[in-house]
Amino acid sequence: MNVYVAPAEMRTAVLSARTGNRTVGFVPTMGALHAGHLSLVDAARAECDVVAASIFVNPTQFAPHEDLDAYPRPLERDLQLLQEHGCDLVFTPSAEMMYPAGAETSIDVGAVALPWEGAERPTHFAGVATVVMKLFQIAPATHAYFGHKDYQQTLVVRRMVADLNVPIEIRVCPIVRDDNGLALSSRNAYLSPDERQQALALSQALRLAEQAHASGQRSAAALRQIIRDHLAAAGLSPDYVAIVADGTVQEVEHIGGPVVAALAVRVGQTRLIDNCRIG
Amino acid sequence: MNVYVAPAEMRTAVLSARTGNRTVGFVPTMGALHAGHLSLVDAARAECDVVAASIFVNPTQFAPHEDLDAYPRPLERDLQLLQEHGCDLVFTPSAEMMYPAGAETSIDVGAVALPWEGAERPTHFAGVATVVMKLFQIAPATHAYFGHKDYQQTLVVRRMVADLNVPIEIRVCPIVRDDNGLALSSRNAYLSPDERQQALALSQALRLAEQAHASGQRSAAALRQIIRDHLAAAGLSPDYVAIVADGTVQEVEHIGGPVVAALAVRVGQTRLIDNCRIG
Repeated sequence: MNVYVAPAEMRTAVLSARTGNRTVGFVPTMGALHAGHLSLVDAARAECDVVAASIFVNPTQFAPHEDLDAYPRPLERDLQLLQEHGCDLVFTPSAEMMYPAGAETSIDVGAVALPWEGAERPTHFAGVATVVMKLFQIAPATHAYFGHKDYQQTLVVRRMVADLNVPIEIRVCPIVRDDNGLALSSRNAYLSPDERQQALALSQALRLAEQAHASGQRSAAALRQIIRDHLAAAGLSPDYVAIVADGTVQEVEHIGGPVVAALAVRVGQTRLIDNCRIG
Repeated sequence: MNVYVAPAEMRTAVLSARTGNRTVGFVPTMGALHAGHLSLVDAARAECDVVAASIFVNPTQFAPHEDLDAYPRPLERDLQLLQEHGCDLVFTPSAEMMYPAGAETSIDVGAVALPWEGAERPTHFAGVATVVMKLFQIAPATHAYFGHKDYQQTLVVRRMVADLNVPIEIRVCPIVRDDNGLALSSRNAYLSPDERQQALALSQALRLAEQAHASGQRSAAALRQIIRDHLAAAGLSPDYVAIVADGTVQEVEHIGGPVVAALAVRVGQTRLIDNCRIG
């Protein structure tokens, strides 16, 4: 496994890996890797000839009051995990290399970035879209892998790739959960044991909505209420609970096709998100 | 010369042209080609193995009240000129192909886009940056050619390319002028004979500033006044007259190195820009 710090060297390595029409699967991460990230590496490994990843805690997607400095950075362990999962190329740039003095360009993907995480964190998705575009130029892979846990982020990336004609296939992989249902997240590390227990209500609530739908419930308002009631019973008050047409952030009222139930909840000081596809 | 309407076909053609490490020089245009555009094609022809161009009147860089519909579109003549100048590949997409329903992404390059043309036309440079990024993804050339006449546009493109790590070399070519000094522009076609005569004051004013600098004048205020006085004598009142450090939009007061003198003037209904590098 080769590790590159300089953008130009990563680019050369990826271009070289693509010779002879070989496919390159790219997994952009902020490190602190868990089984969710590694499932993306495994998916890239299964689909592509060469697997590339990046580890970069992107400052521009954090707001000033957020956890940029506290964000975990276990680089050696991350590199070992990537190697164990068959990653070939890793890009680990510094913030100074990604954002040299004078850098000011930012990408706005429009409406899909506005609600939910975008409302809570107004500069977040511009930071995401911009760094992903930079990474796609630095690591010009054939495929890129994102997790469904960050559902809105996958919509932002797809919107940007479509609108800017970026020649890369976006793959979205299922959420990976603990045995108890908790969606894996690097931020779960911030949870106290009690909070971790409380946080189980997120996936439980989504599961209850899924079951109600399976039993014939087609009212989005009813599913939202089921979710809110279960969260309230656990002492949690969500930032949002939404039922949207799959692939959009458009709320539906009657569920006539595939939808996504998405929610965000602050558990203690830690903001957690989760979602599931229904129907 | 091959002409492509579909982005995917243009992309395949450019990638194929690049095999064997061949260089591809790309000239993005809005058509209505004049000797200024053709000098860019000639520069690409001289420097690169393969020459590509695009003809696309980009709606997103026009404001609602501007001349989008009236903008000249002499496609057959443009294609003939490109062929005569040795162009190999031409991309002539429709607006619907470039901006399908749902497209919303836009690129903001920050401070360099704010003054001058950006102040006059607040959405202009987001439109330019976005379409240029799209074109660079569709036509992944090794080099791209822009004219110094649109000085601020060259700064916008350079800023975007640097900030988003786009792997392309930007070349900026000198302004091409009529024998009488008028900088070539597709919009010169809008000028009446009298206005065309009046418009000569732009390049004359810049030339006077250049001569004053050559004679030792190092005060930017003095050069600006020379330019304003000459325009006023021709009955013209500029939108702006600026003396900036070369490669920036930062006004200088004392001229200690290379600067650019830039101006915009409305002649009748037609807004003209011109500039020259001094020192």
